[in-house]
Amino acid sequence: MATVNRQITLASRPVGFPKVSDFHLVYSPVASPAAGEVLVRSIYLSLDPYMRGRMSDADSYARPVAIGEVMTGGAVALVMDSQDAKLRVGDAVEGMLGWQEYAVAQGRELRKIDQRLGPISTALGVLGMPGLTAFFGLLDVCDPQRGETVVVSGAAGAVGTLVGQIAKIKGCRVVGVAGSDAKISWLLDELGFDAAFNYKTAADCYGTLKDLCPDGIDVYFDNVGGAITDAVLRLINVKARISVCGQISQYNLEEPELGPRWLGQLIVKQAKVQGFLVSGYAERFPEGLRQLATWLKQGKLKYREDVAQGIEAAPQAFIGMLRGRNQGKQLVQLSEL
Amino acid sequence: MATVNRQITLASRPVGFPKVSDFHLVYSPVASPAAGEVLVRSIYLSLDPYMRGRMSDADSYARPVAIGEVMTGGAVALVMDSQDAKLRVGDAVEGMLGWQEYAVAQGRELRKIDQRLGPISTALGVLGMPGLTAFFGLLDVCDPQRGETVVVSGAAGAVGTLVGQIAKIKGCRVVGVAGSDAKISWLLDELGFDAAFNYKTAADCYGTLKDLCPDGIDVYFDNVGGAITDAVLRLINVKARISVCGQISQYNLEEPELGPRWLGQLIVKQAKVQGFLVSGYAERFPEGLRQLATWLKQGKLKYREDVAQGIEAAPQAFIGMLRGRNQGKQLVQLSEL
Repeated sequence: MATVNRQITLASRPVGFPKVSDFHLVYSPVASPAAGEVLVRSIYLSLDPYMRGRMSDADSYARPVAIGEVMTGGAVALVMDSQDAKLRVGDAVEGMLGWQEYAVAQGRELRKIDQRLGPISTALGVLGMPGLTAFFGLLDVCDPQRGETVVVSGAAGAVGTLVGQIAKIKGCRVVGVAGSDAKISWLLDELGFDAAFNYKTAADCYGTLKDLCPDGIDVYFDNVGGAITDAVLRLINVKARISVCGQISQYNLEEPELGPRWLGQLIVKQAKVQGFLVSGYAERFPEGLRQLATWLKQGKLKYREDVAQGIEAAPQAFIGMLRGRNQGKQLVQLSEL
Repeated sequence: MATVNRQITLASRPVGFPKVSDFHLVYSPVASPAAGEVLVRSIYLSLDPYMRGRMSDADSYARPVAIGEVMTGGAVALVMDSQDAKLRVGDAVEGMLGWQEYAVAQGRELRKIDQRLGPISTALGVLGMPGLTAFFGLLDVCDPQRGETVVVSGAAGAVGTLVGQIAKIKGCRVVGVAGSDAKISWLLDELGFDAAFNYKTAADCYGTLKDLCPDGIDVYFDNVGGAITDAVLRLINVKARISVCGQISQYNLEEPELGPRWLGQLIVKQAKVQGFLVSGYAERFPEGLRQLATWLKQGKLKYREDVAQGIEAAPQAFIGMLRGRNQGKQLVQLSEL
């Protein structure tokens, strides 16, 4: 049994984009589980944009990570020692285990993973939080109908790729916005998007979107915000539905940014904008996972993973993800299965 | 039978606030109704903020008024001559009759008024478009629950006063934002609002709202937009619902205004913002009017009217309303009942 746990803690609150020096690598003893707890060894750590919010002490829906505290994050792991009757040594679990190699957690806060549904890492992607986020954020908030035009920002991200593919399953015309030509090719050539463009090189985001959406925009799934969303709003149709999942363009600004006001456009278009957190759908997770697993088995959902190696690689991989350098779901492998 | 019709036409498209010189008073012969049409004499003309949009040729949900065309607007009128089997001479009707003393209209585009429900002018207020706007925009979009805090901007307007009173009927705590101390007194002393403040003299809109809404804001009915809405958004609760009815602060700007971005707040609060047009509820108008008439009869809905005299007074009264100088529903009396 290992006795040393390597952890990444928050060293300082970042101003603008996080730097590697905002994190510390620390060593601590591996703890033992008390009654109701388990000790786990993490296999994959998930890196996600929401974590940028936890590094800030601004008012939010979740408590920020304290300075010196282990960074928060989801991971898949194997149970090494159990004081919870419902979990056995060797079970695969998923939960908020943090940026560390070993964790002691309450058994009831972990989700047991059925490895027959897919590789263990999918519990952090298509069969985990990103999959459920795409599923409920698109289907419950927007109810897309066959033939409608669906635009997705952050289209090549872990959530965006699934939103686009689910919209295709529903018979929609899907237009993706992403930040590199390689991502655009992937969306068009492998994931079946009807159109996509690189917002970083498009001379005119609004004009490009207008060309790619000749029938206007019925549904918009927003991971990014900022200028892309400004352009989309000018092109929405009557009764458009907008699901707001993330605003990654705003997370690393040193000063809040101003933008055009568009509530008048919502009136004229009788349109809805709805923010959501996947945690708001917790009671319906089994329904979502069942459907996602079926589509995965049917080959209707494809995914890619971008895997960094070792806990010490997590800060740089996280910063790269915030800058859009990952291709597919960003993971960090912490140990072998 | 009168032979001369006095009309107000659009003389020029205003830049910023309309001026009296943007309108013309013209004389024309009174027309005769063809098959299916009626000739009516208007009693009251309604003046409403949406008309500012019709004076502009920017893209909107409705065709703009052309230069030289009679200004569009709702009115109540008496039938003088009928070529429609469903309407008789002397019937009271409501419809989009325009800024003029006489009109020829399609009988099927007019709503027959039951004068037993209230004075004929109420068909332009509590028992007309403003009443239905308040009813569906509050109840259908926001579904306010007993004990929730409801904030209304433009609270002393034709729609705002009714939104506040309907929210009180539903057992909510109601906070109004309006633009004069006289309006605030009226909201507090006569209409039963729990709190209200004058945004024009409040040193700090956000701080004042925060004091007046100690439990946060669950529902916001927005007629105004701009800085008031910016302040409200910072104070919304989880699962807040925002109904966007108007944006009068923006209608007369010479250049579009920038504002803070707040989609991140919608995510954190899992909140909804919904724009609407009352016309989207046309099929449910009878249901709304029935309930409004019942509340009116029960004394649960109070209203005031600000009545200008004569068609020639309409431009100045309209400009005054855009500047918030009216107290209660702005009407123009065009003839005696």
